[in-house]
This record gives sequence, C-alpha cells and structure tokens, in this order.
Amino acid sequence: MTNTAWRQGQQSKAARLGRAAHLAGGSSGKVVQADQTVALLESVVQPGDRVCLEGNNQKQADFLAQCLAKVNPQHVHDLHLLQSVVALPEHTALFDKGIAKEIDFSFSGPQGARLANLVAAGKIKINAIHTYLELFGRYFVDLTPNVALIAAEAADAQGNLYTGPNTEDTPAIVEAAAFKNGIVIVQVNEIRDTLPRVDVPADWVDFVIHAPRPNYIEPLFTRDPAQISEIQVLMAMMVIKGIYAEYGVKRLNHGIGFDTAAIELLLPTYGEQLGLKGKICTNWALNPHPALIPAIEAGFVQSVHSFGSELGMEKYIAARPDVFFTGNDGSMRSNRAFCQAAGHYACDLFIGSTLQIDTFGNSSTATKGRIAGFGGAPNMGADARGRRHESEAWVKAGREAQANPKHMPRGRKLVVQMVETFREHMAPAFVERLDAWDLAESMGLNNPPVMIFGDDVTHIVTEEGIANLLLCRGEEEREQAIRGVAGYTDVGMARDKKMVEALRARGVIRRAEDLGIARRDATRDLLAAKTVKDLVRASGGLYNPPSRFRNW
Amino acid sequence: MTNTAWRQGQQSKAARLGRAAHLAGGSSGKVVQADQTVALLESVVQPGDRVCLEGNNQKQADFLAQCLAKVNPQHVHDLHLLQSVVALPEHTALFDKGIAKEIDFSFSGPQGARLANLVAAGKIKINAIHTYLELFGRYFVDLTPNVALIAAEAADAQGNLYTGPNTEDTPAIVEAAAFKNGIVIVQVNEIRDTLPRVDVPADWVDFVIHAPRPNYIEPLFTRDPAQISEIQVLMAMMVIKGIYAEYGVKRLNHGIGFDTAAIELLLPTYGEQLGLKGKICTNWALNPHPALIPAIEAGFVQSVHSFGSELGMEKYIAARPDVFFTGNDGSMRSNRAFCQAAGHYACDLFIGSTLQIDTFGNSSTATKGRIAGFGGAPNMGADARGRRHESEAWVKAGREAQANPKHMPRGRKLVVQMVETFREHMAPAFVERLDAWDLAESMGLNNPPVMIFGDDVTHIVTEEGIANLLLCRGEEEREQAIRGVAGYTDVGMARDKKMVEALRARGVIRRAEDLGIARRDATRDLLAAKTVKDLVRASGGLYNPPSRFRNW
Repeated sequence: MTNTAWRQGQQSKAARLGRAAHLAGGSSGKVVQADQTVALLESVVQPGDRVCLEGNNQKQADFLAQCLAKVNPQHVHDLHLLQSVVALPEHTALFDKGIAKEIDFSFSGPQGARLANLVAAGKIKINAIHTYLELFGRYFVDLTPNVALIAAEAADAQGNLYTGPNTEDTPAIVEAAAFKNGIVIVQVNEIRDTLPRVDVPADWVDFVIHAPRPNYIEPLFTRDPAQISEIQVLMAMMVIKGIYAEYGVKRLNHGIGFDTAAIELLLPTYGEQLGLKGKICTNWALNPHPALIPAIEAGFVQSVHSFGSELGMEKYIAARPDVFFTGNDGSMRSNRAFCQAAGHYACDLFIGSTLQIDTFGNSSTATKGRIAGFGGAPNMGADARGRRHESEAWVKAGREAQANPKHMPRGRKLVVQMVETFREHMAPAFVERLDAWDLAESMGLNNPPVMIFGDDVTHIVTEEGIANLLLCRGEEEREQAIRGVAGYTDVGMARDKKMVEALRARGVIRRAEDLGIARRDATRDLLAAKTVKDLVRASGGLYNPPSRFRNW
Repeated sequence: MTNTAWRQGQQSKAARLGRAAHLAGGSSGKVVQADQTVALLESVVQPGDRVCLEGNNQKQADFLAQCLAKVNPQHVHDLHLLQSVVALPEHTALFDKGIAKEIDFSFSGPQGARLANLVAAGKIKINAIHTYLELFGRYFVDLTPNVALIAAEAADAQGNLYTGPNTEDTPAIVEAAAFKNGIVIVQVNEIRDTLPRVDVPADWVDFVIHAPRPNYIEPLFTRDPAQISEIQVLMAMMVIKGIYAEYGVKRLNHGIGFDTAAIELLLPTYGEQLGLKGKICTNWALNPHPALIPAIEAGFVQSVHSFGSELGMEKYIAARPDVFFTGNDGSMRSNRAFCQAAGHYACDLFIGSTLQIDTFGNSSTATKGRIAGFGGAPNMGADARGRRHESEAWVKAGREAQANPKHMPRGRKLVVQMVETFREHMAPAFVERLDAWDLAESMGLNNPPVMIFGDDVTHIVTEEGIANLLLCRGEEEREQAIRGVAGYTDVGMARDKKMVEALRARGVIRRAEDLGIARRDATRDLLAAKTVKDLVRASGGLYNPPSRFRNW
C-alpha cells in the first residue's frame, strides 16, 4: 500500500483549501471577506459532507447559517448536519432547499414544530435526538465533522480566537474537526490586534470571517420573577425543605424554568430561615441564571461552573470571580462539554421540568407536532452509574433505593421532576401514554424519544406533594406514588386511594402539611426578587438585562 | 460589600505570583530554571492547597513530582492531592513526608500496595477512587485545583504549549486551574522558537520549566503477542463470534490486557474468515494499541480516537492520519476527557478484564493489600443511561434486557467482563465475596470500591463460555448463569447443574461448541502477529517498540 492510501482526509482537506485559497487573505492567509462567504462555502463544502453548524442554547453561528442557506443546492446538497441546537429559520430552510437531508441534534426550541412538519413532508431524516455530551462524544467516533462552522467574539491576525463568556460548544467542535482533517470556518464579531485571551489556538482554524453583525445570542435562562406563581413558591418550599435539606444537597444543577427559578429566589429567604446557608446549594453546574444573584449575594453560593453564558450577566460575572470561572482577562470561560461532565459526575442532584410524565415516571418534552429535543437533561437526569465518590446525598439516596441488604450498596443521583399537575391550557402533565410513542413511529425510531426514564427519576414534585420513588418497592407502589401526586388529572383520579394513603403513612408521599409547610405561607413575598429590576438592584447594578426584560 | 470581597482567589494568585516573580525570567517572565523549581513550589504552594499533579496512564510530570517531594514540609504541608494516576514512588513519598495528607485519584498501578500500607499506617486519607471523567468533572465543581503541575513536550517563549501525541489529561487540568485563579506550572522537554502546533495557549500558563530529563512515559498498553495463550485465543474467538458478530458491534472500547489484545490480533484472521470486515470493530475509542496494527493494515478499522498515546507508536500514527486524530503538524492529539465522553456515550461495547467477580456479577480490581483503582473502567463499563441515539447493537441489547413489554423500551450498552476462571497463582477469578468489602472498612468508605457493578454487566466470558446476563430473568437465574461459566472455582462447583443446563438450553449460557467453535482450532496460529517483531513488520517498520519489548 502506498503512503497516500492512508492520507485521503489530508488530501481532501488540501484540495478544499486549494479551491478556496483565492478567497482568503490577510497576513495569515485565513481572512475571507463577509461577502465572499457563500463562495467560500461552495468551495469547501462537498455533497454528503458532515457539517457541524454551531448553534446552542445561546450562541449561534447565524451569519454562517444564513450563508449556508444561500449556496447553490445543485453544487452543495445532501449534507448531514450536526447541531447542538436547531434554533433558527435558516436551520430548517437548509432542508426545505435540499441543501441538507439528515440531521443529528440535541435540542430545538422554537423550531420544534417546523422539524415535525419537515419529517411529515419527508424532507428531513432525523437520525437521533441526543444529549449534548453524547453528540460531542460521537464527534470523535462516528460523526466527525468534515466542516465546522463556528462563532467567536474576536480573532487576531493569526486566527487565534477569543470566545469569551460564550465559549460554550466551540472547543469540542473545533477539536473534533481540526484534528481529523476537517475545515474550521469561524465568524467573528471583530478582528483585533490583540485578544483579551486565547480560547482556541490559531492553528486549529482555517478561515476567519468578520461577520456584518455580532452573532446572535439567546437569553434562554432568564426568567422574570414577576411571572412566578404562588403555586411555584409552594413547590419550591417543598423542594428546599423536603429534598435539599433532607439529603444535604450541596452540588447540583437546575434545569430551565420558573419552577427552578423559584427555588433559586427562595434560598436567601426561606432557605436562610431554615438555617441552610452553607449546608445546601454551595456548588453549581449552572448557566449564570440571573435568578441566582440574590443567593450569590447572600453568600449561599461558593462556585458556579457554566455550560454557556447568559446575556446581560457579563459584568456581574466579571465582578464575582470567586464564584464564576473567569480568565486572566476577567471574563468568564464557559465550556459545555466540561460542564456536562461535571453535571453528570460531580453533582448530587438534577431538578427540571417536563411536559409529560407517564405512570412509570418516564417523561418527555416531545409532544404531538413538536420535536423539541432534550438538551442536557438526559445526561444530567440520569443516574451516573460510573460515579464512585461518596457524598451525604448520594449515599443516602442509594440506601433508600436498596431493596435487599445482600445487594452491593451503591450511591444514587437524585433526579427530581418538578411539574404542576396541569400545564397551560389545562393540559395534564400526567398521562397514561406519552406522545413520544407516536413520535417514535413517525420518526422511524425503535424506541420512543424519552427525555428522562422513570427508573432514573427519584422524586416527582407537584403542588400535591413529593413522591419519593426511591422508597417504592415494586412497580405497583411506584405507579401509585406517581398517581398520588398527580392531583385532579385523569392519572391522579385513577389512583388507589388506600394504597396512596399507605404510601403517605410510610413517607413515600409527602404533602406540604406533612413537611410542616403551611400553604398560606407560600406567597410571592418570599421571593428574594420579585421583578427583573429587583435582580438588577441585588446585583448592585451590574446585571444588565436584555431590553425585552426591561419595562422601566 | 466591597469589590475585593469577591476577589480572594485573584488576590491569592497575585500574592503567589508576586512571591515567585524573582525566580522567573525570559521574554514572557514565565521561565524558571530547573534548579529553582523547589524554591518556586515553596513560593506558590500553600499549606492545605488542592494540588493537581499530572500523572496518568502514560505521561508523568515526574520532575515536578520529584521537586514537590523535596519542599520543606514545615512550610508546605497538608496538601490535598488530585491525581489521575498514582504511579511514582515520589507520589507516595509526599505522604510519608507529611507534605500531603489526602488524595482523590483514579488509578494506581504499581503503587497499589504502598497506598494500602499508607492507609494502614494512617498517613493518607483516600477520599475516593474515581473514574477519570468523574475526577475531571469535580475539578469544575468542588475539587478545583489551586495549583496544577503539568507536563508538555515543548513550550515557546510566550509559554504556548505543545503536548503532541501525549496531550492526555492536560487540557482538562489546565482549564480548571487557569480559569479559577489557579497557578499552572509546566515542565517541558524543550523550549523552542516555534512549536509544531499549539495545544494549550500561553495565557493559561504561569510558569515554564525546562526539565533536566524528558518526562516519563509508561508504555502501559503494549502487550507482547508472544505471551498470549491458546485459552485467550479461544476466549477471543468466542467474543468475536458470540458477541461482536451477533450484535454487530461497530463502535467500541477495549480495556488493557492480553485477553483483549488477543481479540485485536484475531480480527484480520478469524474475523476475516467469518466475513466480518466492515461489519464489526470499525470505530474505536482506544489508545493506539500496537496489537491493533494488523487489523488497521487489513482495513478493519475506520477511526481511532485516543485517551493518550503509546510509546513507539508515534511514526505509525503519523503515517495513518485517516485512522487516528492528528493535527496539521502530523502528530496525534489525544484527549482523555473527550475520549472518555466518547467511550461512555458513543460506544456500543466495553470489554475488559478484572481480578474478582462475585455471584452478582460485581467486579473489582481492589484486592487485599492492594488499592489499585479503576481508571476509565467504571465510566466505560457502565450503561450510559443518558444515551438516546440508536444502533443495531444498542437496540438489540436493550430488547434482550426488556422483561416486560409494557416497559418503555430502552437501549443498553454491552459491558463484557472477560476472565479466565483462575488467574495466576491459581487465584480464582470468581468469589462469593469481593475483597472490596474489607477494603471499604479499612478505608472508611460507605460502599465497597466496586469497579463494575453487576447490573451494568451484560456478558461474562470465560474459557467455559459466555453468560448472557441480559437474558436472565430474576436474581437466581443471574447467579446460576455466572456460576455456570465459573468452571472449577468454588463458585462454579457450587452451581445448580439442572438450572445451568436449562440456561444453556435457552442460550443464556453458550459454550464454545454451542457457538460452533472447535477448541482444537484455538491455536496461536490464528494470531495475526505472534511477536512484537511481527507487529513491527506489520507496521512496515513504522512501529518502534520500547527496548524492553525488543529481544532482537
């Protein structure tokens, strides 16, 4: 065999770079003018390529997405897209135009309905809905990108990149492409003589484009405290007293939503009253939620490592380097891959919301007509069975789950699902059968797209109480524990009243009153901030909320 | 609150850097002479610090370890060490001298017995034995290093680092320290004007030391084919035909050892005869095992992403960039964190050996008098419950495990334990009770240090056959399936013969003959390489084995 037989990737890369060489200039030979981006993509992207289009919860390589949607489908077609998040109209437009034909992704917020339509029209093949770290893992095994289209804050003349607070997925994507003969193209908001710091070294980057507009960033983790209801305050009180305090939960992750924002805002008030400062919620794997500001200021929080940043939190983060991970330049370094590893292996608890829960405790956000994806929830909301280090919370949860004293003792991650029994438009959160079953059929999957499996869930919290599934022995008990907190939904009404009472007597189900929580105390007065303006005030004016959250 | 109240980490770092400033020079102000290293460490390391001392399966920051062992214990003491691998005498000497007092680690090969002695003497507190990715995760949550002592191949004048093939743990360690006000000190083999590529940017690094000797690298994954026995050939045949072919295992990880080396060496012979090329073992998360060379040359392997490199494989890897992950400079980039994520989430199968297995299928390498640790095995050898993407192997394993058709279908990772029924010195691999129980007591752990839990194991393979635990219904069947392949060990002799025969009739236990494998065919002639010299030949002279593996 000749030497070149093992260098097809290198040869392909060299050919692509050669085709694009006339488009690139600057001292590094990497800079491409923004108006030449479509031509660049047509030169380096080949039919059938695996293309990673950076887009995640927050940061979007939106200019590159727009340009990719403008390439000539006769030359560039049948792409296999790899994406953390399908968020922009351009992402789905790629399928409408035949530029792309299949996708592996993790999350699709606003585009969930369009994705479902594209599936129905046969215009897209969704191979799988991943959790982020799973998708990153595949970038190094069987989904290595031929081309990576990424976004950074700034580049210097050599092509070193500054990704700053929104570093997010960039290092994982670039490493997978750059070290397997992939082409790395970056859109930057500015080209600077010197960078505040280097987040990605220049020799991992092939082309730099100064985009006409700064990349889009979605403030996905901002929740206006004014919209938190008193039912959510009640549920948050139950979580703090009935779970965080009982297990001594110090290291944790919160999902997105008003339910968990309520918990964050109750730490400096209700949590403080219960004497829990320093005993719970000290170390976080969490985006910089504005709702956490009052708890940080009250001294509840020792550290926060973040998947990504949050718009408006930059100055506050930079002023709190003891809490957040920041560089020598003072700004945050987020990193989704490491934060997901931390969330999986170093956290004792994950708590999040969902759209549907069945009587086995399986939950999904994939509902009829919407393919929403799961993001980090399956990774954070699964028992970390490779974990071996002990903590109070992990050991206690494992003990509760151990049915037989002869079994090898093993710790357990606390995985809490927190839902009101009815969501908006009176849709029940509890169902006998998940919509995910139908979706699996329409998507051609063997297994329904479940976000969190019932056997990974340890507690379900509703306004009706806490069901501790760890203490259930056998499937029947589990089912009745779930029905027992499902309230007036059909699932709840079908409960076996006697068995539910027996479970309550054993402490498997605990109502607010069983926890010594009076419903009349669950008022919005307990929230450490009642408005976005309160959050700004709590931050000493450092938090600068996006305009859509300002009404002053 | 004043601004500085939130900047204690920054202030501490500035004070440490100030104390060491007179020791550092060069154009970057970062270069410290080797003979000033002890003085540097005494200036920047403070009592009680969390110190990450880089050392993993392969690369060791051995010069920094030696220097740390020479600091004055009156000034530097009570350190909390964080280490992937405890491998060198200097590592344990730190505890003998009182410089360090507690440790969180993952693996200790040769130092396992000394660790046990230190525990018995009350000179060390072992907080936990982690899996690598778990330890890295904690670096971002509750075990963030104050000081990181790392090793690189070369630095330039600015302090940019080239870690080359042995990048390994370095990016994870440096990121955790550099972005949380930690001090990063690197030993390098040389200081160059220009680097082949940049693996770690200069502004993440505080001090650079040109060490008097190149850092130590252990060729841990090299197995001499001459030492593979015919029993191992037989077991490898059973694995290839009875597991890899049956499930269509394409993406996988192999543990260390002669058992798995035998599988690698049988792919181009026995695997080829069975028509399996392209159908199994195409994509790997694996160190560059020399034993894989014949399979690569035969076209079995599409890609290999590696945790670390392997001594002597550098030129071979550089000549096979279609298979390995290499940079623009041509040399490999390994990355333990990403490869562990890939092994957990993107692989369908993990197979490895162990020292003891109990009748529940729990296994451990922690035996009496030895605290060996587990390395990556708990991460790779656990069902990845956050995984959602489907593959033939994963779906089939999940189907076999599903006991009740009403349960939500879920895929399963294949986790195979491969052992001869007796190890060296006739120690039985199967035991009624793991030594780990006693070890837990002596170490003050709640839970015994289990490497892989029985409920994560799907198959146990011995020379007696394959026990498919997925097909077992209930604990009794599981126990008898395990006893059924435990041969003439006490555990095997205590089997219920009738039940074992029934399990065999159902295909839960399969003997070699049930798989159509004649024991007489299991000869060393099947090995694609019978010696290290054969491996060199297969590589076209590119593989350059360490001298200890050369007898010519």
